[in-house]
Amino acid sequence: MKGTVLYAPRDVRFEDRPDPRIEKPTDAIIRISATCVCGSDLWPYRGIQTLKQPVTMGHEYCGVVEEVGAAVKGVKRGQFVIGSFCVADNTCPNCRAGYQSGCLNLEFVNKAQAPFLRVPFADGMLVSTPDLPPDDMLPSLLAISDVLGTGWFAADAANVRPGSTVVVVGDGAVGLLGVLSAKLMGAERIIAMSRHEKRQKLAREFGATDIVTERGEEGVARIKEMTGGVGADSVLECVGSQESMAQAIHSTRPGGSIGYVGVPHGVALDGQRLFFAVVRLHGGPAPVRRYLPELIKLVWDGKINPGKVFDLVLPLDQVAEGYRAMDERRAIKTLLRP
Amino acid sequence: MKGTVLYAPRDVRFEDRPDPRIEKPTDAIIRISATCVCGSDLWPYRGIQTLKQPVTMGHEYCGVVEEVGAAVKGVKRGQFVIGSFCVADNTCPNCRAGYQSGCLNLEFVNKAQAPFLRVPFADGMLVSTPDLPPDDMLPSLLAISDVLGTGWFAADAANVRPGSTVVVVGDGAVGLLGVLSAKLMGAERIIAMSRHEKRQKLAREFGATDIVTERGEEGVARIKEMTGGVGADSVLECVGSQESMAQAIHSTRPGGSIGYVGVPHGVALDGQRLFFAVVRLHGGPAPVRRYLPELIKLVWDGKINPGKVFDLVLPLDQVAEGYRAMDERRAIKTLLRP
Repeated sequence: MKGTVLYAPRDVRFEDRPDPRIEKPTDAIIRISATCVCGSDLWPYRGIQTLKQPVTMGHEYCGVVEEVGAAVKGVKRGQFVIGSFCVADNTCPNCRAGYQSGCLNLEFVNKAQAPFLRVPFADGMLVSTPDLPPDDMLPSLLAISDVLGTGWFAADAANVRPGSTVVVVGDGAVGLLGVLSAKLMGAERIIAMSRHEKRQKLAREFGATDIVTERGEEGVARIKEMTGGVGADSVLECVGSQESMAQAIHSTRPGGSIGYVGVPHGVALDGQRLFFAVVRLHGGPAPVRRYLPELIKLVWDGKINPGKVFDLVLPLDQVAEGYRAMDERRAIKTLLRP
Repeated sequence: MKGTVLYAPRDVRFEDRPDPRIEKPTDAIIRISATCVCGSDLWPYRGIQTLKQPVTMGHEYCGVVEEVGAAVKGVKRGQFVIGSFCVADNTCPNCRAGYQSGCLNLEFVNKAQAPFLRVPFADGMLVSTPDLPPDDMLPSLLAISDVLGTGWFAADAANVRPGSTVVVVGDGAVGLLGVLSAKLMGAERIIAMSRHEKRQKLAREFGATDIVTERGEEGVARIKEMTGGVGADSVLECVGSQESMAQAIHSTRPGGSIGYVGVPHGVALDGQRLFFAVVRLHGGPAPVRRYLPELIKLVWDGKINPGKVFDLVLPLDQVAEGYRAMDERRAIKTLLRP
């Protein structure tokens, strides 16, 4: 088969790769129905995260089980399944505590921008849909794999409750689905920080009640002004830069919570500033596996349509253009069909 | 009157100061029954926190109301009262949310190592005991003002629950009372990190089930070993150094919580390391005011004896020796009697 490899900044190739095969009896092979490019893929694509060697790409996926190892009992050939970007056994103490992204056997999926994918710990990782889904549901099911699961974790980590005032920093797909998640969790006021018209529109569609275009200290001042000088109950940080983290921390009320899910790059938090902000900070790679059954049900029942974040659909072999479009912010998120 | 002034590292003087007087109708003047030296006073005493000019010292206090301003309704002359080190109005939105240490009118008490103290927002800040306390209860009542309130907040911020496995980093008075707090909140296993025999003994008396003497990476490895490779549910960070913060973060299980109350000095948290640890971080100046009624009741009813952390009692005019003894770790905590 062919698969996606990043050779160097802005050098994405779709090239011959070995066909994945069952390596352990707990593995499954799935035929990818849809995969996509993640905001976090842009860190190495832009050279902000440096590469020592070419790397295979892709960690968001859904598809049909093609083959299972001898020990797999939970899913079978022909089922439609969704998994998370974290390889987790779902049996260790951390997984049992709901933190599959801290699994004692943790690895990260990195070969999903391809027509087939080997999934380790298939019983632990994969959750099947009630039936084969209609084609127009694919984008929303795919979104669960990372971008919705991550936005959901951001809202959960930020303790969003009915009636909360929520700020979302970052208007990428995760931020937008953080807005949707906060809405579903009952937030009363959702302030999306965005200066991009198309994304503002989608944020409002997902439940944002206010848009703030200011950034940095001006953005913080605006949030304070809108919240009686206090700050928000919950702030979702969905970028991962020094500026966005500072913006999140100082937009939060004392005793309020920040859920941060943007992979931090070049971020150093000043201990004393954080201390005197008296906020709660929780984040990391999202334990998407914990949320899969609930999120699949919401999509399957037509309650949510997170697939709207995909505003560009390309055949998988045009993956390089998919990266370019996101890099240049022409697309919010690119869906790829093998 | 005379009061305590720090002129330069290790230069503490007890010298003439103006008598405090009612400045606003919401003020009270209290006659200090007992005050003390705080671990955080050692940061400037040791020159780690630099001084631009001489500063008055002391933020822990209890005593008898001497005089109240015209607007004070909640306490009256002759009552025995305890307040927190944070000046807070206890009426703003942050105070009402239980975060008096984030009060919109926040200041810090800094003149309590003296025979008399002016307390602003007396109605908000001061809580009275049911009656005048017996003399031997003074140390425990004084402890509530900061060191117990802060240890309690550390345990609360670290989400200690019945059955939790808890690690306490730091064996100063706050750490030791963090042990006591975790015990009261139902922790099953409490691991105190200490290499000081006298403090280990008090930690055990307060409820520690295990003592770990290793520090840094070795300390983390020991905690991991003791918790099946997973880490603790809750970690109380009661120091404030780069090393102690790292030790706390990496001793916590994914999804576990750190309550940090040591004022960070020279601490920079690497965003990406924190992210991949998937922990919860909450801390800051403790909102002691929130806990005052509950903690006063526990002491008044004889349920706890946090005053045991005071292992040196001196007349107030020997305050300089009180600092020296703590700096040299001859004393855990010095109580001063005017």
